[in-house]
Amino acid sequence: MPEIERKLLVDVPPPLDDGTWSASRLEQGYLAITDDAEVRVRRTDGGAARLTVKSAPGLTRVEEELELDGEAFGRLWPLTEGRRVVKTRWTRRDGDVLLELDIYEGSLSGLATLEVEFASEEAAHAWAPPAWAGRDVTGHKAYANQSLALYGAP
Amino acid sequence: MPEIERKLLVDVPPPLDDGTWSASRLEQGYLAITDDAEVRVRRTDGGAARLTVKSAPGLTRVEEELELDGEAFGRLWPLTEGRRVVKTRWTRRDGDVLLELDIYEGSLSGLATLEVEFASEEAAHAWAPPAWAGRDVTGHKAYANQSLALYGAP
Repeated sequence: MPEIERKLLVDVPPPLDDGTWSASRLEQGYLAITDDAEVRVRRTDGGAARLTVKSAPGLTRVEEELELDGEAFGRLWPLTEGRRVVKTRWTRRDGDVLLELDIYEGSLSGLATLEVEFASEEAAHAWAPPAWAGRDVTGHKAYANQSLALYGAP
Repeated sequence: MPEIERKLLVDVPPPLDDGTWSASRLEQGYLAITDDAEVRVRRTDGGAARLTVKSAPGLTRVEEELELDGEAFGRLWPLTEGRRVVKTRWTRRDGDVLLELDIYEGSLSGLATLEVEFASEEAAHAWAPPAWAGRDVTGHKAYANQSLALYGAP
């Protein structure tokens, strides 16, 4: 089932130290990107890590996740140089939805996005973004993680 | 340490049912091949399977192997279509060395190669191949597994 989500840019994030937000630091890097598949590694809060193989969009979408121990992640991470996204993901419930505010680091420093997933198209349309959210970039490929990792911020 | 090995073509394999040879069937397919890395899956005798990430040849060679259960292999295998090598590897001790006779299947049917690994360059040069071994293709890229998977038999 395709995800129904909206993504907006955030020029000035809200205060994140008010006790309503949780934070996770994500390090994500691509080992290989081809026409048929992408293979990436991701580590959360310097701990649990995974390797994910995703097929390119098509009839049968495959997404396979394998656990990685810290040492394996450490050996594979250097192979992702130049194809990385490092960000802190701040999350907070807001009524029916979960706000995911990603604040990027490194060469993507200055970029922040808000993502929200919905159960239906109607809910997605009806949703009123917070006042601090900016331009709607839903569906813009340039803001997908893979594009950000390869080409930087648009 | 680079492997020291020799590889020869085998036009007519010797009798393999004389009790001196052991056989393993290998199914190997590439999920992704890029300038920086290759990611492949391999299953032995329909059982133990692994995903391997290898960096391209360079200063720091990375080779990382992850265990795959049978179901994960089954989900990933379809992503390797058109980039596969399936073969039975027949092995036998021959004095100091191990003979590895690979008999290929499918679109590579008709191809057989003999590979032997050595402890030193001297041993590699001194080795006398069996009478049934043919043309020496040591170092020929076209006979590497990756090339065979992508381009078929030369």
